[in-house]
Amino acid sequence: VMAAVWSRWPRLRCLRSSHARTAAPQGPWALARRALHVASVSLQEVALTSERYGVQRLPFSRVSCDDVMFFERLMPGRVVTNADELELFNVDWLKSVRGSSKLLLKPQTAAEVSQVLRYCYERNLAVNPQGGNTGLVGGSVPVFDEIILSTVLMSQIISFDEVSGILVCQAGCILENLNQYVEEKGFVMPLDLGAKGSCHIGGNVATNAGGLRLLRYGSLRGTVLGLEVVLADGSVLDCLASLRKDNTGYDLKQLFIGSEGTLGVITAVSILCPQKPKAVNLAFLGCQSFTQVLNTFTTCRAMLGEVLSAFEFMDDKCMELVEQHLKLSKPVTGNPFYVLIETSGSNSTHDEEKLNNFLERAMTSGLVADGTVATDEKKIKAILVSFVFLLSSIPQMLWSLRERITEALTYDGYVYKYDISLPVGKLYDLVTDTRARLGRCAKNVVGYGHLGDGNLHLNITADSYSHSLLDAIEPFVYEWTARCNGSISAEHGLGFKKKFFIQYSKPKEAILLMQRFKAMLDPKGILNPYKTLPSSS
Amino acid sequence: VMAAVWSRWPRLRCLRSSHARTAAPQGPWALARRALHVASVSLQEVALTSERYGVQRLPFSRVSCDDVMFFERLMPGRVVTNADELELFNVDWLKSVRGSSKLLLKPQTAAEVSQVLRYCYERNLAVNPQGGNTGLVGGSVPVFDEIILSTVLMSQIISFDEVSGILVCQAGCILENLNQYVEEKGFVMPLDLGAKGSCHIGGNVATNAGGLRLLRYGSLRGTVLGLEVVLADGSVLDCLASLRKDNTGYDLKQLFIGSEGTLGVITAVSILCPQKPKAVNLAFLGCQSFTQVLNTFTTCRAMLGEVLSAFEFMDDKCMELVEQHLKLSKPVTGNPFYVLIETSGSNSTHDEEKLNNFLERAMTSGLVADGTVATDEKKIKAILVSFVFLLSSIPQMLWSLRERITEALTYDGYVYKYDISLPVGKLYDLVTDTRARLGRCAKNVVGYGHLGDGNLHLNITADSYSHSLLDAIEPFVYEWTARCNGSISAEHGLGFKKKFFIQYSKPKEAILLMQRFKAMLDPKGILNPYKTLPSSS
Repeated sequence: VMAAVWSRWPRLRCLRSSHARTAAPQGPWALARRALHVASVSLQEVALTSERYGVQRLPFSRVSCDDVMFFERLMPGRVVTNADELELFNVDWLKSVRGSSKLLLKPQTAAEVSQVLRYCYERNLAVNPQGGNTGLVGGSVPVFDEIILSTVLMSQIISFDEVSGILVCQAGCILENLNQYVEEKGFVMPLDLGAKGSCHIGGNVATNAGGLRLLRYGSLRGTVLGLEVVLADGSVLDCLASLRKDNTGYDLKQLFIGSEGTLGVITAVSILCPQKPKAVNLAFLGCQSFTQVLNTFTTCRAMLGEVLSAFEFMDDKCMELVEQHLKLSKPVTGNPFYVLIETSGSNSTHDEEKLNNFLERAMTSGLVADGTVATDEKKIKAILVSFVFLLSSIPQMLWSLRERITEALTYDGYVYKYDISLPVGKLYDLVTDTRARLGRCAKNVVGYGHLGDGNLHLNITADSYSHSLLDAIEPFVYEWTARCNGSISAEHGLGFKKKFFIQYSKPKEAILLMQRFKAMLDPKGILNPYKTLPSSS
Repeated sequence: VMAAVWSRWPRLRCLRSSHARTAAPQGPWALARRALHVASVSLQEVALTSERYGVQRLPFSRVSCDDVMFFERLMPGRVVTNADELELFNVDWLKSVRGSSKLLLKPQTAAEVSQVLRYCYERNLAVNPQGGNTGLVGGSVPVFDEIILSTVLMSQIISFDEVSGILVCQAGCILENLNQYVEEKGFVMPLDLGAKGSCHIGGNVATNAGGLRLLRYGSLRGTVLGLEVVLADGSVLDCLASLRKDNTGYDLKQLFIGSEGTLGVITAVSILCPQKPKAVNLAFLGCQSFTQVLNTFTTCRAMLGEVLSAFEFMDDKCMELVEQHLKLSKPVTGNPFYVLIETSGSNSTHDEEKLNNFLERAMTSGLVADGTVATDEKKIKAILVSFVFLLSSIPQMLWSLRERITEALTYDGYVYKYDISLPVGKLYDLVTDTRARLGRCAKNVVGYGHLGDGNLHLNITADSYSHSLLDAIEPFVYEWTARCNGSISAEHGLGFKKKFFIQYSKPKEAILLMQRFKAMLDPKGILNPYKTLPSSS
């Protein structure tokens, strides 16, 4: 057990940490996209999934020369038919699914989106709305030849109220850019995620993105105050209020949050930004068991209280992969689990004192327990065994260890990704059970995620995609999750890859009702077809 | 200017404060209800409103003896036809609207609610779902002879997870009881409001109640994790998940939050409870102008940061009425505005230090400004003029001053109530303008509310209801609000009284879409008819 190294961070450095850690993910996300042209990873899954579940192209119209001419007149120079450029929009970030769209449109305004959809609706042309294309479930790319409607040119900030912190902007604004913009005014975006350098706020809202700040600032269901949405028939729904409270009728915007572009195209967002914390601190801890991770969380939540802003965990295998593939080394070794704790607050002295008190408690308990086998149930509950503490003056490095796991996994081979919500006590049992079940068939079975939110990212790697391995994983993982009343998609959504499994988390009546909403809002089914819901027939 | 009296509260006393202040509102709410039998206040408004807006009974069936017998068989002893008992459920808390229902049902389970609705749906009988009947917009009582479906006997707690703080309970649980239950386990309910001693959690969710803790814990849109809802045709929709994150399909429960019983009857709720704060502090301040109130808020938010849990304001007239009608005297006098600030946190020393720093800043600025006329724009922004500070050791008394304003107003005569969301800078202008417009026609025009949320409660009293006074107020208030893109109902909902004005806050397309949702979920329109939405024809 190492001694605790607890030093106060220079305040300005702390303030810059959230800037600093934005740099890393932008690179790989963008790089991976550019690398597509030389990528040797084969896109097997889409074909296999379509085959496996019998997905067939629905009888939408096919894009004609007349259609292209119409769009070219509507938005000259912003209509793409070039195959090379289309490739970047047809393939997802994971390079796991590929569509075959022949047409990409880049509207700049809601009025243009409206005209596009009105036309497509009349012509019965299918449309795939796309933001930053950073989704992990194949929801952001076409399945067949849907027209890609990209928000890439809708990146205007409409207004920002410096008293209330309410930001109104177009859907195509990149999350990281928005965060920099509001940070200069003393606020932060209420969400943060690894893909921040590429993802669009419209896509974040359309997928109800979770991420690293949810523990502190809650979900987008509470922070999104208004939306402007274009419906399938081209009509514009203006619910772009910028009020903290509004109980006049049904909250229509909620239906579009998390609907993955299947009910409407989000064109603008009004969102409440919390104040920028004056102090940010990080701690990276090692734990000898998952029980200790849980005890650390409970103690941490009680002692850090309102300044706790992240509680992430990762198993040792994740850290090995990050080291192996990205050459990032962790500051603490020799533990099966690691925990990344962040505090954000308004008073650096107070925050440091809280964190220090917590670390002392944890360490003291750890030192006591280090020489003790905790067989007594009460003792086990009371003490935190065998911690190793470290506080780094390089927060960016610590965050990279967590944020770049997704990237490291892609270098490990084909990745089977699962994003599960479970009661927090059972979170890691799923990893253990899956590892035991797969044995040597899998290369690596790893678990990490947002412990504070009960959200596990279970990832399984293999040298290449294999039908038999998938059969060993599914529906095992889904059935396991359903037995615990968990969710088979905590934050990634269903998109294309997970839509077939919705019944593991939702009762039949709920799915039927969802299908009725879809039919009501998009009777021809042109918006992001083959996604989110099983077909209603 | 008084000197600041800053003394540390005994910690245990602070802990009890949130208990203590629950006592007061329960009394008056319940008392007022019981006092109905001897009340001399006439129920003019419902008749007048119906007449004014041409509301006529829709062609629902009328309750027959066979119907009563069916229900009596279904739930023996829980079917009420006695006029005296019915009176309490036919009249709202404000005694401003009265229905004429002849039948009250008290189911105990979702299965019973389902059977009731299936029967009513087939028989075309209208139903008025009712929780604690504490609503302020006439949404909780029948307009004509709708069957009252009360959740009063649905008060079981289903489960509570002491790790995650997730509570699952039936819809008829009283908010205050739930708060006491979770407080014993180290948590608090994420919402708190004056009617806590009577209101049901199901009603809170159905009306998307806001209240005193929204500033800190956000809206129910984020904290409600799951709902069980019985639809108009009797089918049960089980979305009673207890997971912090779940992105499997559309979030159906959101549509029922705030739908005021018009889309379904909420029978159970899953809700995320935050940790109980270890320390609670209050400050009651006087301000010489509304600009100072705003500056106080900005300073306070920056300096108290994450421990700020309430920022309420009230004008001097409110305080006068509380003193006059309830004999409660305020600890600070001689100011046109008062502010109630609450901190809740995990470390009492830190919280007190933050509050002390803030008070010192505010006071110092005030002392400086006291002898200075702040003509310079920069100066005005920088300083907080003429505060009077007081920290009381009797938090209950301080909270009563704020929480019992509603009650004091009812003793002042007939009350015209408005619950408005506005950009915070314009919040009080509406009061000033209304006061100027009404002149001597009104007895009192007062403003108070949740400043931190941009939520003004504008109340106008008169000796009795008058058509001409109402004409002077409406649509003036609504038009004023609409010009500022405000909401004509921040947290009270539309119910019966405000439904006629939805178009001031929502565009036509949104209202049409709401009507389509209503028609889809309740094609016969039997659920809480005449409420929330204007009729679609």
